[in-house]
Amino acid sequence: MPRRSSTAAIVVIGNEILSGKTQDDNGPFLIRELRALGTEVCRLEVVPDEVELIADAVRRCREAAAHVLTSGGIGPTHDDVTVAGVARALDRKVVHHPVLLDCLKSFWTDGLTPARLRLAEVPDGAEVVMSAALRFPLIVAENVYIFPGVPELLRAKFDAVRDRFRAAPFHLRTIFVRESETNIAQCLDRTLEAHPTVALGSYPRFDHPEWKVKLTVESRDAAAVESAVRFLVGALPAGSVVRVE
Amino acid sequence: MPRRSSTAAIVVIGNEILSGKTQDDNGPFLIRELRALGTEVCRLEVVPDEVELIADAVRRCREAAAHVLTSGGIGPTHDDVTVAGVARALDRKVVHHPVLLDCLKSFWTDGLTPARLRLAEVPDGAEVVMSAALRFPLIVAENVYIFPGVPELLRAKFDAVRDRFRAAPFHLRTIFVRESETNIAQCLDRTLEAHPTVALGSYPRFDHPEWKVKLTVESRDAAAVESAVRFLVGALPAGSVVRVE
Repeated sequence: MPRRSSTAAIVVIGNEILSGKTQDDNGPFLIRELRALGTEVCRLEVVPDEVELIADAVRRCREAAAHVLTSGGIGPTHDDVTVAGVARALDRKVVHHPVLLDCLKSFWTDGLTPARLRLAEVPDGAEVVMSAALRFPLIVAENVYIFPGVPELLRAKFDAVRDRFRAAPFHLRTIFVRESETNIAQCLDRTLEAHPTVALGSYPRFDHPEWKVKLTVESRDAAAVESAVRFLVGALPAGSVVRVE
Repeated sequence: MPRRSSTAAIVVIGNEILSGKTQDDNGPFLIRELRALGTEVCRLEVVPDEVELIADAVRRCREAAAHVLTSGGIGPTHDDVTVAGVARALDRKVVHHPVLLDCLKSFWTDGLTPARLRLAEVPDGAEVVMSAALRFPLIVAENVYIFPGVPELLRAKFDAVRDRFRAAPFHLRTIFVRESETNIAQCLDRTLEAHPTVALGSYPRFDHPEWKVKLTVESRDAAAVESAVRFLVGALPAGSVVRVE
């Protein structure tokens, strides 16, 4: 099912984000961390606290990427339906995980209410990942990592599995240009024709005193990046390059 | 095709966001503005600069919501493919809009190169919206609003159409509670059973000295909100409510 290794997709779950009560920081955090590790994020979806919509997003993300990371919607209340959504996407039942039950029993010595028991729910067959830094394990169901929405908890749990996302790093060069995009579009086309394996980005800015466009050249292949940068700098109008980083 | 009036979905287009080079501010901006106007955002997707993936996201968002707003991927370079993606989603051709051609001709009196001409491209049949504050019109194709990715331009163009998103406002009350989520989950269930039309959110926080959970009660129906808040405050454990806002 996973399309490419070293790719990930992110599903952010939460009515609080779609209603503007909270701004999502977990998506941008995961994108930055994954990229730095060498994993390419190929899509991100923000969906409401609804089982079928979560399941739908998780299915689509599993089609698109090798890893899926979800954020939010786990806990004991009615709006915490991510485990049920992931289970539906994987066509698995929701069960209590014995390791999570043990964690809960040692935390609440006065017994497990139905609400407390919900914290032990996982899609059947899920793995739980524990580390010394965590009070409660991370749930991983097949290739779906189920992170909590609270940013500090998400970050601690991400640290426990970050090595799983290490891959060949990306190489990035940036070229600042004082010509407008319309005047350099053809140079970019020619560069891509000659260097089809690099990713070439063009980002205009209208309020900078020195440059009008930031160009990015990126690939896991450092030599391809250098070659494309040389070609591009040569192709751009004389005197238009402000600097290369 | 649009499922509910007063709903919107957002498609953010850009490899620069998925690769962590830029953090998206347009999605959160649009979410906040739309909510304040009374329009409910029901999904947000971030997708790469690829025609078929953009088309796919736009189609899905049109199924989910009355309005679709896209951000990014318009301009004269190879990575600006949003117009083509929206056109594909709507099963329309890409054509030059006469009003946009006029704008371009008055801006560039030395002639229109192929790159400049790309700025006049729209899905066939699209409307263009101009206002005194805009240098260049906003493109609207059926119910899809095609915004530029540069935040200042997006905000100016949103201002030109913000009245189209006005609807009955949302009413929101917030209750801060010093009990943990596991101890109040049943009260929340009972509140929802008695008040099924309100949206009830439960957001734990682990580092606040005074409260452990923030509860939100929300609806377009102010009386339903007040009634649900009264019920909920009565149902919560005695002494657990820190304050109601």
